[in-house]
Amino acid sequence: MNPRRRSFASDNVAPAAPEIIAALSRVNTGTVHSYGDDPETRRLATLAQETFECELVIHPVATGTAANSLALASLVPPFGAVYCHELAHINTDECGAPEFFSGGAKLLTLGSPNGKLAAPQLAAPIAHAREMGVHHVLPAALSISQATEWGTVYRRDELTALAAAAHEHGLKVHMDGARFANAVAHLKCSPAEASWKCGVDALSFGATKNGALAAEAVIFFKPELAREFELRRKRAGHLWSKMRFLSAQLNACFENELWLRHARQANAMAARLAEGLRKRGIALLQPVEANEVFAAFPAKLSAALRSQEFEFYDWPVPAGSSPAVRLVTAYDMVSDDVDALLAAIPASSA
Amino acid sequence: MNPRRRSFASDNVAPAAPEIIAALSRVNTGTVHSYGDDPETRRLATLAQETFECELVIHPVATGTAANSLALASLVPPFGAVYCHELAHINTDECGAPEFFSGGAKLLTLGSPNGKLAAPQLAAPIAHAREMGVHHVLPAALSISQATEWGTVYRRDELTALAAAAHEHGLKVHMDGARFANAVAHLKCSPAEASWKCGVDALSFGATKNGALAAEAVIFFKPELAREFELRRKRAGHLWSKMRFLSAQLNACFENELWLRHARQANAMAARLAEGLRKRGIALLQPVEANEVFAAFPAKLSAALRSQEFEFYDWPVPAGSSPAVRLVTAYDMVSDDVDALLAAIPASSA
Amino acid sequence: MNPRRRSFASDNVAPAAPEIIAALSRVNTGTVHSYGDDPETRRLATLAQETFECELVIHPVATGTAANSLALASLVPPFGAVYCHELAHINTDECGAPEFFSGGAKLLTLGSPNGKLAAPQLAAPIAHAREMGVHHVLPAALSISQATEWGTVYRRDELTALAAAAHEHGLKVHMDGARFANAVAHLKCSPAEASWKCGVDALSFGATKNGALAAEAVIFFKPELAREFELRRKRAGHLWSKMRFLSAQLNACFENELWLRHARQANAMAARLAEGLRKRGIALLQPVEANEVFAAFPAKLSAALRSQEFEFYDWPVPAGSSPAVRLVTAYDMVSDDVDALLAAIPASSA
Amino acid sequence: MNPRRRSFASDNVAPAAPEIIAALSRVNTGTVHSYGDDPETRRLATLAQETFECELVIHPVATGTAANSLALASLVPPFGAVYCHELAHINTDECGAPEFFSGGAKLLTLGSPNGKLAAPQLAAPIAHAREMGVHHVLPAALSISQATEWGTVYRRDELTALAAAAHEHGLKVHMDGARFANAVAHLKCSPAEASWKCGVDALSFGATKNGALAAEAVIFFKPELAREFELRRKRAGHLWSKMRFLSAQLNACFENELWLRHARQANAMAARLAEGLRKRGIALLQPVEANEVFAAFPAKLSAALRSQEFEFYDWPVPAGSSPAVRLVTAYDMVSDDVDALLAAIPASSA
Repeated sequence: MNPRRRSFASDNVAPAAPEIIAALSRVNTGTVHSYGDDPETRRLATLAQETFECELVIHPVATGTAANSLALASLVPPFGAVYCHELAHINTDECGAPEFFSGGAKLLTLGSPNGKLAAPQLAAPIAHAREMGVHHVLPAALSISQATEWGTVYRRDELTALAAAAHEHGLKVHMDGARFANAVAHLKCSPAEASWKCGVDALSFGATKNGALAAEAVIFFKPELAREFELRRKRAGHLWSKMRFLSAQLNACFENELWLRHARQANAMAARLAEGLRKRGIALLQPVEANEVFAAFPAKLSAALRSQEFEFYDWPVPAGSSPAVRLVTAYDMVSDDVDALLAAIPASSA
Repeated sequence: MNPRRRSFASDNVAPAAPEIIAALSRVNTGTVHSYGDDPETRRLATLAQETFECELVIHPVATGTAANSLALASLVPPFGAVYCHELAHINTDECGAPEFFSGGAKLLTLGSPNGKLAAPQLAAPIAHAREMGVHHVLPAALSISQATEWGTVYRRDELTALAAAAHEHGLKVHMDGARFANAVAHLKCSPAEASWKCGVDALSFGATKNGALAAEAVIFFKPELAREFELRRKRAGHLWSKMRFLSAQLNACFENELWLRHARQANAMAARLAEGLRKRGIALLQPVEANEVFAAFPAKLSAALRSQEFEFYDWPVPAGSSPAVRLVTAYDMVSDDVDALLAAIPASSA
Repeated sequence: MNPRRRSFASDNVAPAAPEIIAALSRVNTGTVHSYGDDPETRRLATLAQETFECELVIHPVATGTAANSLALASLVPPFGAVYCHELAHINTDECGAPEFFSGGAKLLTLGSPNGKLAAPQLAAPIAHAREMGVHHVLPAALSISQATEWGTVYRRDELTALAAAAHEHGLKVHMDGARFANAVAHLKCSPAEASWKCGVDALSFGATKNGALAAEAVIFFKPELAREFELRRKRAGHLWSKMRFLSAQLNACFENELWLRHARQANAMAARLAEGLRKRGIALLQPVEANEVFAAFPAKLSAALRSQEFEFYDWPVPAGSSPAVRLVTAYDMVSDDVDALLAAIPASSA
Repeated sequence: MNPRRRSFASDNVAPAAPEIIAALSRVNTGTVHSYGDDPETRRLATLAQETFECELVIHPVATGTAANSLALASLVPPFGAVYCHELAHINTDECGAPEFFSGGAKLLTLGSPNGKLAAPQLAAPIAHAREMGVHHVLPAALSISQATEWGTVYRRDELTALAAAAHEHGLKVHMDGARFANAVAHLKCSPAEASWKCGVDALSFGATKNGALAAEAVIFFKPELAREFELRRKRAGHLWSKMRFLSAQLNACFENELWLRHARQANAMAARLAEGLRKRGIALLQPVEANEVFAAFPAKLSAALRSQEFEFYDWPVPAGSSPAVRLVTAYDMVSDDVDALLAAIPASSA
């Protein structure tokens, strides 16, 4: 057994895929114009349009926080409101990045037990905002995570209804797709069907968690929303001078559907893990639809596994609930990795 | 002749050095903790302290604009003033990034014919600022480029006097070291002698132009100035999850003094180019001390060279002056590359 | 009956007190230095120190939003967290002003049924923040409203415990005192006992709702926190050139305890109104401790009163609850005003 | 002689005009809706449209810094460039307020000996900006001061040419009219002819220096530019709850052309002062067209006058020049005030 696979802490503890490193080597030849005026970056636009089957504008950046924040800053004014789930990564894990990039916009959070928002949740807060007038930040965007922070995946009809409600209220629709690949793999639909065909205006397309070294992209399905993106990216220090190395990673993802193959593998490993846990009588907190498993682990079980160098995070639960953990699988995990964890669980753990 | 070497447009059109790509491959194995809690990042701290012979705090980022802006935001309040040369990259080429990261600080520019500032230039503007009280932004930092935007290099006594004057006025001293390696190579002194021993508080250490793929570092020689840097970096989207890949590039630079060898080569090529131009009767606008050559090229000469696919930028000159160009050499350039350009200059060009 | 008193919409629909207008006239003579270097502004410092029985720094501004936001921006970094009640005015009614002034700080809200926060509520969210490290905004301040947005008043022991908990966690304590006067009047204690003696670090002292024309003040009980306030105020456009007119309003409030007499009157009217409503069988949603009454008004009752030109706001209540309204009394209201409203309530309204 | 008139330091050391105080008293009766939904504020819109003979949007604020910064923030994005004179108040005297309100926009300064910009000055810097692309802030607005900081007044043909050039380059045109009244009084034209008919898009209309207590207004001649102004004003804490008191001041200015009578008086006093100085052989640095006189005062003369309690500011001049002072007259100054200063100048002063 490969000891390195004992970490179920996050998909970002994984290395980069060999195809990504190979791509960096392949484009590392000769001079090319800097700042994106290069063949790899032009090719990225083509590959993305083929992948998503539409006109679009795509801009690479190195991190998911940058992708989300730059996208949101393009969609909302400094006095705008972004509606999102209370567990949204933009709200809980980015140290106020959306507020920083937007110049002070406000995230207004909504709840739900499974990480998904539903169309009817928007009406009341937006009606309240309209009534408050200048005293309230201006409703400007909806941001949804797909897959969600609970490892669940919006169905296409849910997405369509939610985006339609947002648009009806004058909101732009942003999708945090740090795990968009896992969602598409789960939905078994085309990337187009999982994004703009459901009403998504701007997508943070994640690659880092899915095998890249450091590469994400902001994709605007309505090119007019992208008008000033490049100025925002530059002033945020997110325009690479040697851009070919950022674009090449994304190109390697799109080529031969590497991104989807990776996501399917990660999802399959999560499903295997979930199945194994269930068989051992361990309760799962959510349906496992992407590459994250939330499980009720007694403290003793967590301690036992950690003593064998398995890694995973405790997951915050309401006071009084049984303790829970988050287990994340990754594109490079194999059945043996999962089975090793399962094998390490004592019979009497549940 | 290798056609790729016809670009003298910038040092960032060059590929990454083989050592950098090799480093990425080498660290691409197994899981490691994300966000900088990894062996490569720990090793970077050690290597940097050895290189600079002092206690310091070093934080990698992917771009020079990020390095400069995050450093400055750590040194000045939103209502602060940063004194810099009017040609400083932070003032002319970063789309307002320092203003963005700092929350609105103001760059107050000073002039000089060679890109260097001199200690006595600070007294008058700072006295004025003090007199103006709350109506004037608060003098907070001096930012100097080493090497400068004119390809010149501050001597150590100049730096020492300038930093001392800044400190006397209560300013912090930031050095934009996008081409710090070239400056150190020129000065033939130790990195310590070119930085904190002259009074530099924070250094943007450039590696991208010097052979890295995308890697810079902010180095604080006074650790207390770095206290909140990591929060600023995270909220700006500049904290990589797979940090090993950023740190590994910098480690490869520091190892075996790759960074200095690269800079010496680039400098030598610039010196060779300058010498060749002089021999052909072409006037140089500045002493050539790093890897940039500013030359008076008649329009006809520029056109002739460009028709042979040589690339370089026109350089803005005062109205009435002869036209000028900037020629940048890079770490991967060899004598043949320079000689090819020189050979392409018709005898009667000056 | 004076028809103008039919508005119970807010205390800011009231005119300014005659003493305030008289003060403006009195200081409107001759030239004085601008921007606060004038006798009225110096006198304000003296009066405030006498009133609060301590060393302090006081800076006048024209609006409550400015006072709150400038105070908070002085207490928290751009990547800081401000803990506050979910109904806090800074969270719900200021169009993102705290986010704007602070450069993107985040308000993290806590709940409670009566508008008050309790000391034990801080531990869990702050422990979570510490654990999250750079991914979470930095816990920096607690902001509490006194009187609260529910018209309730923190007791001194509650305040003391809350501020002590905040300080223990490294937070600064800000008090939004838009209705501080009403709270002091209710507590029947000294201004010192209601503020710094309980641990308040910075107070937004409200006067506009309490009889001024447009005047609030930020009071720092720890002068070191005020160090850069004046620069922040200037760059926010909140430094008046003819400052005497702002200071004179506050001086008129402090003289002869006008501010407390005003607040006592407003509170007494609210008490009278509450008593009258109770007698008519109308349920109150909260104890009436300051100058706001929250009452369960059937829709029919609201409509009937509005048809007679009484004014008041509907108050948002959870879905399924009976509709409620907010009735605000003001310093210039008299018993007849209250009795007129009560008399207009049909016998069968409850 | 009235000792109070010995200050020629600024027009903001003057008290408010009796008509202004009277207006505050007059509107100080009964309840009115807050935040601008009141008769005085509605009347302001009417008076302003009559005064400027056009459709417009007018929003009052209390300070000139707020007016300028809110106007500019409405016209330029956070990554925008504002072109202005290097002596512009927004550049030198507002502690970075435009940068703060706009979220980091950059003021790019142009020079001229008399405080005025000329149409041909725009082409070169804007061409440079376009060429630089995303590395340069986006050209977005021109801001001009009328009257200028040198006490000069743009002629209408100069303004028209300048605004036309700005519009041609895609810039919006902002006028800092802190002393707009003095300019109109000098030009002897209509307010319309001095503003929108020359191409001004947004005007900061100053009243405080011209007799108000604290009142300025932002006027948008293109209503679509005002779309989000009210949200910006609120979040900046510049929306007064008791707005009637702000609007009433401006109404009193517009009624019976009080603002123009005030400005004519201040201008006349400056002309009288200039004439008297010239007769005494004292050189003036600029033509006196508004209410400011810049005079070459030997240090001995300044000292002599100050010993008699005359007040005025030294004015920065290039090294080597004779020392200079700025003398500002105000709406409430009379001939005796000016003559007293002149009489105090010893015969041999020049």
